[in-house]
Amino acid sequence: MIDVSIIGAGSWGIALAVLLHKNGHKVTIWSIIEDEVSMLNETREHKDKLPGVKIPEDIIITSSLKEAATNKDMLVMAVPSPFVRSTSKLLKEYVKENQLIVNVAKGIEESTLFTLTEIIEEEIKGVNAAVLSGPSHAEEVGRGIPTTCVAGAKTKESAEFIQNAFMNEVFRVYTSPDILGIELGGALKNVIALAAGIADGLGYGDNTKAALITRGITEISRLGIVMGGKKETFSGLTGIGDLIVTCASMHSRNRRAGILIGQGHSMEEAMDEVKMVVEGVYSTKAAVKLAKKYSVPLPIIEQVNEVLFHNKPASEAVKELMIRDKKIEHSDLPWE
Amino acid sequence: MIDVSIIGAGSWGIALAVLLHKNGHKVTIWSIIEDEVSMLNETREHKDKLPGVKIPEDIIITSSLKEAATNKDMLVMAVPSPFVRSTSKLLKEYVKENQLIVNVAKGIEESTLFTLTEIIEEEIKGVNAAVLSGPSHAEEVGRGIPTTCVAGAKTKESAEFIQNAFMNEVFRVYTSPDILGIELGGALKNVIALAAGIADGLGYGDNTKAALITRGITEISRLGIVMGGKKETFSGLTGIGDLIVTCASMHSRNRRAGILIGQGHSMEEAMDEVKMVVEGVYSTKAAVKLAKKYSVPLPIIEQVNEVLFHNKPASEAVKELMIRDKKIEHSDLPWE
Repeated sequence: MIDVSIIGAGSWGIALAVLLHKNGHKVTIWSIIEDEVSMLNETREHKDKLPGVKIPEDIIITSSLKEAATNKDMLVMAVPSPFVRSTSKLLKEYVKENQLIVNVAKGIEESTLFTLTEIIEEEIKGVNAAVLSGPSHAEEVGRGIPTTCVAGAKTKESAEFIQNAFMNEVFRVYTSPDILGIELGGALKNVIALAAGIADGLGYGDNTKAALITRGITEISRLGIVMGGKKETFSGLTGIGDLIVTCASMHSRNRRAGILIGQGHSMEEAMDEVKMVVEGVYSTKAAVKLAKKYSVPLPIIEQVNEVLFHNKPASEAVKELMIRDKKIEHSDLPWE
Repeated sequence: MIDVSIIGAGSWGIALAVLLHKNGHKVTIWSIIEDEVSMLNETREHKDKLPGVKIPEDIIITSSLKEAATNKDMLVMAVPSPFVRSTSKLLKEYVKENQLIVNVAKGIEESTLFTLTEIIEEEIKGVNAAVLSGPSHAEEVGRGIPTTCVAGAKTKESAEFIQNAFMNEVFRVYTSPDILGIELGGALKNVIALAAGIADGLGYGDNTKAALITRGITEISRLGIVMGGKKETFSGLTGIGDLIVTCASMHSRNRRAGILIGQGHSMEEAMDEVKMVVEGVYSTKAAVKLAKKYSVPLPIIEQVNEVLFHNKPASEAVKELMIRDKKIEHSDLPWE
């Protein structure tokens, strides 16, 4: 049994808290929102964010960061990506030296182009920042549906510590040393999910979507490798796996926003309609900046950028992708 | 303009015939079934196999293999995989020296473990056998939905010849030298599609399916590389791309059969219900033989084999996959 706190009471945070509790650990959930903490303590269920999943009575729910962050074996950072920096600033006075913090949010900070563990490391000196990612809708993990994830950490020991904490017969955890590759895949997949949604909205079929997913991961991989991520990671659970789940599911806000855009709505109208943060819109900006910085061509992501921010009709963007120069699929394979 | 014949009048053969005709080529379709040829000449539509797609009047439809196969620039082999050998035997007396034959069927011959181009090469000495594959439901190509494929051939010249013949603004063709990798991916994906269907039938969600697809392509890739295929191919359109489209779509007989098995039906009942050849059932046998021959572990495919042929309950097979030894995701990535 370990003593663990979940920082953030969103759907993913709660699903992971319930999972860790089921595995026999001592679990605390922290939220900055007092009303949310009272409501959760009263009803033991987050009816808005993860309806139907009961939070066991012996999970502590608190708004005291001191209580949640002091002397824990593991902290799980489960706040939305825009709040990772501010939450890290709050955390640093409580956490012990070399604290293990497992980030489970996905995103890239547009202004700095930092990944989320890079932000945590910048704000909390000497932290042991790690990541847990993979094709894992909170709604399904909450219902005990078989799911796989990858624990990425700097050392094998930390990765296996995370693996041991989370793994059970419906939640399989692999380990990996490639934190950067895991985080880049998780953040950039949302742009491709927007593209897949746009294709759906235009009335295109499974062929088009499979092409966007496959060529999309090739793009993400191309950029990610130049940045220092590992090729294998992008063809694994946190790369193509997470991309598949995001592009296939109506749980994905990115995909739903894309569908509206494909049907002819503007980006603003789509964001209004979906009524939540559409991470892919921000990630698109970050990806275009990264493409420029590292001189890597990202044809699909660039077309998404044109559609989102420069009023390019979606059908024209798809057409342009289809009639680009004839290409070899993998330019490094030799002919006879 | 080139002079091309499609050998076989199934849904994929007709969709490709119409595509090639639209691209300005002279097109002939051959079927061994006299009645089918008469019906197609009369109605110019295959109402059973590709309803709603009109076959233009100047496409020649014939049951004369001599007419279809003599002195053509390209032959497209579009018969079901079990008929590739018998059709090749018939073809060999008509085709010219070094005839380009593009196989578009998917499968492995269980008795010899040959791929389909290997069968063509064995039967027709001196042939120039190539392959066209990718995430491409015939139903969608017939409706002009944007689609991508890969032309695999021994020489760059042949691959580009195929690319030029097929490519247009809704059908993007990449080239590749890796014929073997393309064929293995196409054949083995059907086993994973069965597994994905079984998971659907058990009531599991998108997380489980994404995991099966991602770990499935890892397995296929592991075997395929040992057999001589290229790693890149398995993460491309003919590998993961085709696998995605097969696992996502109700067009897939393999997936539909899997759903029935997941719901508790036997393999025989599922085959009866789907009323068509379920290629993945045969490919499972071939894959298990290949795994033994090349000493490569294929955990998902082996569980499918247990469920199909040894009455193992599907839910137990999934459970076993989830609680195998804890694993590193990609065992060749180094830790700090």
